[in-house]
Amino acid sequence: MRILLVLVKIVMVIMMNDALKKIKSSADKLKDDVLKGNKAELEAPVRSLNNVIYNKNDGFFELKGLMKKRTLTANTVKTFAQTLRVMSLSKSLIETEDIATKREAYYVSKNWDEARFKEQNESDAVMDDIEAMFSVNREQLGFIADEHGGSVAGELVVIDKDPNSGEELRIDCTRFGSGAYSIPSDVEHLRFETKAKSMIVIETNGMFERLNKHGFWRTANCIIVSMGGVPTRACRRFIRRLSDDADLDVFVFTDGDPYGYLNIYRTLKVGSGNAAHINEFFCVPRAKFLGITPDDIADYKLPTHPLKDVDIKRIKDGIKNDPFVHAHKSWQDALSKLMKNGKRAEQQALAKHGLNFVVSDYLPEKLKKPDSWLD
Amino acid sequence: MRILLVLVKIVMVIMMNDALKKIKSSADKLKDDVLKGNKAELEAPVRSLNNVIYNKNDGFFELKGLMKKRTLTANTVKTFAQTLRVMSLSKSLIETEDIATKREAYYVSKNWDEARFKEQNESDAVMDDIEAMFSVNREQLGFIADEHGGSVAGELVVIDKDPNSGEELRIDCTRFGSGAYSIPSDVEHLRFETKAKSMIVIETNGMFERLNKHGFWRTANCIIVSMGGVPTRACRRFIRRLSDDADLDVFVFTDGDPYGYLNIYRTLKVGSGNAAHINEFFCVPRAKFLGITPDDIADYKLPTHPLKDVDIKRIKDGIKNDPFVHAHKSWQDALSKLMKNGKRAEQQALAKHGLNFVVSDYLPEKLKKPDSWLD
Repeated sequence: MRILLVLVKIVMVIMMNDALKKIKSSADKLKDDVLKGNKAELEAPVRSLNNVIYNKNDGFFELKGLMKKRTLTANTVKTFAQTLRVMSLSKSLIETEDIATKREAYYVSKNWDEARFKEQNESDAVMDDIEAMFSVNREQLGFIADEHGGSVAGELVVIDKDPNSGEELRIDCTRFGSGAYSIPSDVEHLRFETKAKSMIVIETNGMFERLNKHGFWRTANCIIVSMGGVPTRACRRFIRRLSDDADLDVFVFTDGDPYGYLNIYRTLKVGSGNAAHINEFFCVPRAKFLGITPDDIADYKLPTHPLKDVDIKRIKDGIKNDPFVHAHKSWQDALSKLMKNGKRAEQQALAKHGLNFVVSDYLPEKLKKPDSWLD
Repeated sequence: MRILLVLVKIVMVIMMNDALKKIKSSADKLKDDVLKGNKAELEAPVRSLNNVIYNKNDGFFELKGLMKKRTLTANTVKTFAQTLRVMSLSKSLIETEDIATKREAYYVSKNWDEARFKEQNESDAVMDDIEAMFSVNREQLGFIADEHGGSVAGELVVIDKDPNSGEELRIDCTRFGSGAYSIPSDVEHLRFETKAKSMIVIETNGMFERLNKHGFWRTANCIIVSMGGVPTRACRRFIRRLSDDADLDVFVFTDGDPYGYLNIYRTLKVGSGNAAHINEFFCVPRAKFLGITPDDIADYKLPTHPLKDVDIKRIKDGIKNDPFVHAHKSWQDALSKLMKNGKRAEQQALAKHGLNFVVSDYLPEKLKKPDSWLD
């Protein structure tokens, strides 16, 4: 056990050092170039959908390799200085094992005289560039978002440490009663112990509480996670790491609408276009869609709402432009069927058959029928 | 210990029975009236700001006593039937110790033929009426919102029970590492053990994580709560119950802007106008404002943003119409000063002096100076 702990610590230090090393060597090279009078340059991948490729086997949106170079000139000196300042802030965060929200980092810059950022979107963009430049994720650089990361209950022990004493903490997610474990913004250091067979990740907090209240995770031998809409990066990374470490299937339970299909499920499974440089860390290749499909709407005679204009636009965009939809026939069919019927249904619509129909019938039935899952 | 547990159970059963009894006796009376051919009526308090009174000593917005009567006629028969249906749903929720989100309750109505609700705002309004009619809170009726209730860390043991086995669960909030305890939607059944002296409730999750990461709750012997913006009812009720049970002061740490002052702090402390019938349960009379005051902005030389139009409107509205502001000279002064300076500042702005200035200087200084708190 102690040996394991030591190993884990070594791996963590290496990971940290990886970001640290990249920052240092990049800064050293730059300093060298400047001192020798060479052209000083920073290079980062282009971050947009036209620099993205999707290969079903790899399972996430990948960069094609287009790079943009920024050369140090009179015009770029401010952005250059800001990039180096943020790299330096990241270095000190890593060295002191501290974190900063994106908002805090923006305010820290207020002391950087001419290099201060005017608006947070400027500092956010620099962070994204650095993340892409070094192929590390923002959390490894010490920067976190100011978001709630999701809630967890079920057959899982999360192993963390006391930030002050370093003591190992074992967090037993079967023992929170009606409450839950709240995922922190940075999950890289967490370890897991579980005998569960799968995870069910849920769009709404209300549905999560229902499954928790009725101990669904116990009867289904699973772990349940509330995403609260589109999952945050912390939540996605938590699901991914847990799925990898404990060899778990991930079932995604959302509303039956384009938002649930493309914004929540697609982003969780393969990532997003404008953050392709980090999808590798945040995608969840083993995700399967268990939520409300167009067939469910018919089979379970669910109450529906008409598609809104924004739904229709999202379906058309998805079919036309989304490499994920292009690669998955099942999703082309599902989106077309949704469009044809002109109706969407929420996960709460199952309550029409009784509040606990979802626990007693819907989920057990769906879990038993792999051919009803969408990939 | 066992005796305590039994006592708590009895109190809970009485509270539950209170709502149950009120539902039953109201339904019985109605049935009687209908069978005897008398005029059948339901009566509930008017829910609006002109039916609200604020007395500083009571500490929350109270109802003045205006009532609205709904008499059963051909025109009102549908609303009448819907109200009785929702009362009946609540009765079965209480009897089976189950819960339903407001959204789920809306969908349950889809099976009520002519009494079905067309839109959720209709079923929400009926719930609010029933809540006001019986002077109980919605959670006691078994209805919850679909919201995340906030995160907790620090010197606190929450006592809950396993929803299935009934086993007592002790949740130690010092042992979540970088994570936290996630507050459930219904907190009525929770009990608390703590030696903390106070609670600090925080607007943003990012600031909460900073205080958690640096073990601020340990050095300050307190409990920290992340509200994530305007606190949900579950979060407000949790803070209130914990403050009462453990005799704790509550310090509120928000941004220095009208939203932090009036939407977050005012709502937490005394409640809101359109839900005056439940403020009694949800207000936190011991709340003190510890967040960024207009004086802090000057004293700590914080980076600011200009007030937006919506900020200015909120200040004017508050000074003119808010009974809470009318009763508290300190808030009139603070709002006027903010207006005069035309500047607001966020809690993250403290990062200008270093990321951990808030932990090492700001909070310890403010906690030591009661005359810097706003009431």
